[in-house]
Amino acid sequence: MGHNSFGIEFCVTTFGESHGPAIGVVLDGLESGFPIDFPSVQKMMDRRRPGGNALGTKRDEKDNIEVLSGLFEGRTTGCPLAMLIRNTDQQSNDYSTIAHTFRPGHSDYTYQKKWGIRDYRGGGRSSGRETASRVAAGAIAMQILQGKGISIQAGTVQVGSIKAQERNWQVARENELSCPDMKAARLMEDLIGQVSQQKDSIGGVIECIATGVPSGLGEPVFDKLDAQLAKAMMSIGAVKGVEIGDGFEASCNRGSLNNDQMDSTGFLSNHAGGILGGISNGQDIVIRCAFKGTPSIAREQKTIDESGQEQNLSIQGRHDPCICPRAVVVVESMMAITLLDFYYQEFGRK
Amino acid sequence: MGHNSFGIEFCVTTFGESHGPAIGVVLDGLESGFPIDFPSVQKMMDRRRPGGNALGTKRDEKDNIEVLSGLFEGRTTGCPLAMLIRNTDQQSNDYSTIAHTFRPGHSDYTYQKKWGIRDYRGGGRSSGRETASRVAAGAIAMQILQGKGISIQAGTVQVGSIKAQERNWQVARENELSCPDMKAARLMEDLIGQVSQQKDSIGGVIECIATGVPSGLGEPVFDKLDAQLAKAMMSIGAVKGVEIGDGFEASCNRGSLNNDQMDSTGFLSNHAGGILGGISNGQDIVIRCAFKGTPSIAREQKTIDESGQEQNLSIQGRHDPCICPRAVVVVESMMAITLLDFYYQEFGRK
Amino acid sequence: MGHNSFGIEFCVTTFGESHGPAIGVVLDGLESGFPIDFPSVQKMMDRRRPGGNALGTKRDEKDNIEVLSGLFEGRTTGCPLAMLIRNTDQQSNDYSTIAHTFRPGHSDYTYQKKWGIRDYRGGGRSSGRETASRVAAGAIAMQILQGKGISIQAGTVQVGSIKAQERNWQVARENELSCPDMKAARLMEDLIGQVSQQKDSIGGVIECIATGVPSGLGEPVFDKLDAQLAKAMMSIGAVKGVEIGDGFEASCNRGSLNNDQMDSTGFLSNHAGGILGGISNGQDIVIRCAFKGTPSIAREQKTIDESGQEQNLSIQGRHDPCICPRAVVVVESMMAITLLDFYYQEFGRK
Amino acid sequence: MGHNSFGIEFCVTTFGESHGPAIGVVLDGLESGFPIDFPSVQKMMDRRRPGGNALGTKRDEKDNIEVLSGLFEGRTTGCPLAMLIRNTDQQSNDYSTIAHTFRPGHSDYTYQKKWGIRDYRGGGRSSGRETASRVAAGAIAMQILQGKGISIQAGTVQVGSIKAQERNWQVARENELSCPDMKAARLMEDLIGQVSQQKDSIGGVIECIATGVPSGLGEPVFDKLDAQLAKAMMSIGAVKGVEIGDGFEASCNRGSLNNDQMDSTGFLSNHAGGILGGISNGQDIVIRCAFKGTPSIAREQKTIDESGQEQNLSIQGRHDPCICPRAVVVVESMMAITLLDFYYQEFGRK
Repeated sequence: MGHNSFGIEFCVTTFGESHGPAIGVVLDGLESGFPIDFPSVQKMMDRRRPGGNALGTKRDEKDNIEVLSGLFEGRTTGCPLAMLIRNTDQQSNDYSTIAHTFRPGHSDYTYQKKWGIRDYRGGGRSSGRETASRVAAGAIAMQILQGKGISIQAGTVQVGSIKAQERNWQVARENELSCPDMKAARLMEDLIGQVSQQKDSIGGVIECIATGVPSGLGEPVFDKLDAQLAKAMMSIGAVKGVEIGDGFEASCNRGSLNNDQMDSTGFLSNHAGGILGGISNGQDIVIRCAFKGTPSIAREQKTIDESGQEQNLSIQGRHDPCICPRAVVVVESMMAITLLDFYYQEFGRK
Repeated sequence: MGHNSFGIEFCVTTFGESHGPAIGVVLDGLESGFPIDFPSVQKMMDRRRPGGNALGTKRDEKDNIEVLSGLFEGRTTGCPLAMLIRNTDQQSNDYSTIAHTFRPGHSDYTYQKKWGIRDYRGGGRSSGRETASRVAAGAIAMQILQGKGISIQAGTVQVGSIKAQERNWQVARENELSCPDMKAARLMEDLIGQVSQQKDSIGGVIECIATGVPSGLGEPVFDKLDAQLAKAMMSIGAVKGVEIGDGFEASCNRGSLNNDQMDSTGFLSNHAGGILGGISNGQDIVIRCAFKGTPSIAREQKTIDESGQEQNLSIQGRHDPCICPRAVVVVESMMAITLLDFYYQEFGRK
Repeated sequence: MGHNSFGIEFCVTTFGESHGPAIGVVLDGLESGFPIDFPSVQKMMDRRRPGGNALGTKRDEKDNIEVLSGLFEGRTTGCPLAMLIRNTDQQSNDYSTIAHTFRPGHSDYTYQKKWGIRDYRGGGRSSGRETASRVAAGAIAMQILQGKGISIQAGTVQVGSIKAQERNWQVARENELSCPDMKAARLMEDLIGQVSQQKDSIGGVIECIATGVPSGLGEPVFDKLDAQLAKAMMSIGAVKGVEIGDGFEASCNRGSLNNDQMDSTGFLSNHAGGILGGISNGQDIVIRCAFKGTPSIAREQKTIDESGQEQNLSIQGRHDPCICPRAVVVVESMMAITLLDFYYQEFGRK
Repeated sequence: MGHNSFGIEFCVTTFGESHGPAIGVVLDGLESGFPIDFPSVQKMMDRRRPGGNALGTKRDEKDNIEVLSGLFEGRTTGCPLAMLIRNTDQQSNDYSTIAHTFRPGHSDYTYQKKWGIRDYRGGGRSSGRETASRVAAGAIAMQILQGKGISIQAGTVQVGSIKAQERNWQVARENELSCPDMKAARLMEDLIGQVSQQKDSIGGVIECIATGVPSGLGEPVFDKLDAQLAKAMMSIGAVKGVEIGDGFEASCNRGSLNNDQMDSTGFLSNHAGGILGGISNGQDIVIRCAFKGTPSIAREQKTIDESGQEQNLSIQGRHDPCICPRAVVVVESMMAITLLDFYYQEFGRK
């Protein structure tokens, strides 16, 4: 199984670099006969794409999807569905100054060490641009899950030390951070603006909730649903932490508080985040992902070049001061991809 | 690939229930010719086993390993090495009262929903006893890694709201929590004692550090080293959160603080926890895992039975008020298993 | 995924050497609630075991199965079912003369080259004894398939140049070769007797038929049902060729003869062997496997030892002059293991 | 792992249908820094493509490869290399008569049964066109293997009952069948011409030899080199049988004849086809694949349509009377893909 693939019965393979001809994704294992709503897929793509909001990079990619296979008369065939997204606004010359210098906080150093060669243009394979492939896959997975009664919603619940105090998911779609607390959203936006002016970036936390997930998804021991979700989320570039339900808060609490008791109407709380023993219990799946501040900052930093010489580097170009606004839809996508895989494993494709 | 297997080039498969005849593990992909030091393996087993320390359950298992295959004249052959651990001190009668009632915070409910049948004796497959198989595997992986200059150390750094303020790994082996701060260790022990007397349990955080890991382990995109480590750790029963390097703290900070700058001597800090772009960068790998309080508590809790009737349940028997003392070696084992797999992928077995 | 594992949704992992303490097998992915008939499993084991018939080796192994996990009150739980078979009649001293000399036609040379160490006692991991693990797995798979209306039958259809002219599967169970042509069976037995007296061995062909397989098993392109069956069969030690339906005969024929035409009652012939485009078509699956003569022969052969010195070797000990009688049940087992895996992939476990 | 993927450390994923926008392939796991010679890749593509020789279909596809990713300044980067081949000469109208009727010997029936929908244009995913993706992958694998001293050569050794008597690989490139016996090649070509005039097709056998393969490739038990090669070859559309070394001939022979004896200069024969116990022994790997006659024939055949009504069908359009001339390079490609995967597993990518 390739390292650029994810999933067993629904297997997603991505390819492509930031400044190559194209990026793309192959979906293997989709059920047949499903009519994909591509305008909706494109809307999810737009939520991620650069230039899609006021807070982010000014790179302008249309991110139009071309379907190459697996579709017949608008329906899935059961054969692999491949999608292609051309890179159009690449501006490779932006990156000449960092061709041989390692950007702090980036994979430049490790790629060079591992392979002895790297496509330095825009970070190549390690660029956040790769996540466009995940969103194309996730958008389709989400449509299929919706038909099974499962819906997924994510939003920014923290930027720097500003935390959302509410979970009003109605308002989440009305601000660019998808923050479920409008007052906090405004404060977060202000903070991001300040940070950007200071040539810096800032981290944040995205929360994702899946509703309507039936009990039974996940396998004991190694392939627990939460274990695979943790992998899914940690595989997103800037994520440094993942927690399920009460997460790290649970480590401060007592068992008597953390246990979700039951009565004849069902569970009386959801500290577990919808997963017990690695298997979904029918409650909402709740996961949170900690994002570091974008490593590309205009501020001068110490680093070295390929020959080991010390350099002072100020990264120019178009970069997001906070990745959360665009990462929300990536988190939703990885949730959808993971859930659909476990759904097919448990209930088949019929 | 089975759901009870983990890894590609070093693949660990575990089997067995808490109160069945035995548990065991198959290691596939070990290099050949390696002389395993089984007394050392047994020592690691003893750090995990019940009855091994004053803070935990009184179940007394010797956890003696029987090697079934893959060894010839004391050396690995390259063929699967299978190990068996008999269950000897089972006391199945302890569990009769919960045969048809779902323990809050346990997998009883989800196992029943998923399979319509479950081995309720001691939690069956979902029991922490399964981790003995992981430790047997991890102990061998750790020996092999040591030969490659890689060492692994974990310890409890938080119990409830008591946090270790130091990282003195010398003292970590001198207290039962493997806590790297002796003063904090004493406070943690007191807290665990109190909690136990209150028929309750308490959560905690375990930190694990791998030193000497060469740059180049891990793959971009889905099979990032941190993504696979997150899966490895989240697959441990009571873990609800995982973070790498600064983790959730990084989400509060600015890029300028979080980026690890470099000079000609190397990295100037390690906020990243030794991984950039999913690939090890030669610094220490640092990971923390949040454990919930053990769900088995003697305090009365509301729940339901298999027929949906409400029940009040007080769980009797031998349970750990805090799982951290015994989980430290499990975290070390999952780190070792994951690193050895990536090591073989990158550098081969020679 | 380990190299000693086979299958995706029904994953079989075997371990063990001929003269180690035990061999065994882990079945991961079995449906839950299935009541296994172990006396029937044991009967299939007896068909394979040494000493089980008059034509084979005199090694006497009882091959009693001990179930270690995955069973509760006689039913499968959905968790891995592990089985252990102790090696009891090992007579390791038989093998001292070949400890450092490569037996022609055996894996001794390649194991030594690959790993620099090998368990020479009885061929170690490469021994036909490993197939006992497969039969234990296959016997359970076959029981489950029977409940789904699928039955599997294999028999020897060729020994040397003697071919079965009939396919009377009634008589197949009445001779030790499971040959569906009683007259041919007698000739085959005579030939095996002659060959044995001449201190030689002889090859043969085993045919296997699966009836009642629903249409839809198998996947296009790489995971075709016939491709996976070919792998399954070629993974049996002495198999040198595999063919589906008309097989090599089809290469001599015209498309007009080979195509299976249809009318409203269904297919008018079965040249395809039940598989079209890699997917079962509802007809009988028909496969044939070519076995070489057992390489262990008492006749003197030229070979070399580990230091490269030339040696003349006469292999002593208990060996089968023709492996077919005991391999029939191994072929059936690999068919059952493969079909159950595809069945679960297509129809789920419910 | 997706069903349209093949391999572990070198993982090939193909996608695309005969008459969709494009077909393509993703290569995951290639070593970094390798300078690919694309004109040579294109030459291998030309050996497979329709219209490439006088004996085959008249469909004219240029099969130009567009590289989408994984290449930087002409060298592999270690990241997935994706290639796209546009379908240009599709003539979809050719296929309208068979839109709802099952062609005998094709996958039309099984695809419909499995998925309830199928892209009937040119056979969709089941078309031989999919093998163009394999050849693109195989051509690159072959270049890398050549750098390691491994070369691969295949040719037609049988058409109908005409067999090559010689193995003169010099002449194989001088006839369209790549037959290593020029006299036989002429007879084969005549036979194919006759068969074509009779609106029929004919089967054949392709032999493939890999030279320079080091000892040690392959794993015992399930992932034997010959087992995986059997899967690789049987996954090619029209293949109905696979044999290694003496193959089915070995089943007629005695062990004393079949065993490859050794002296101090090495093996004295190669009945085993270069593999012992599933592991390469340093001799030539020899494999043969039986191809059925192309199922698409102009002759009238009985069949049914989707509603079960009986139909008489004469397949029009451009079809190969014998697939061997174009399949030779596909067999070479699957050999190369399989060997490179095992090479990386055994020796790493450095």
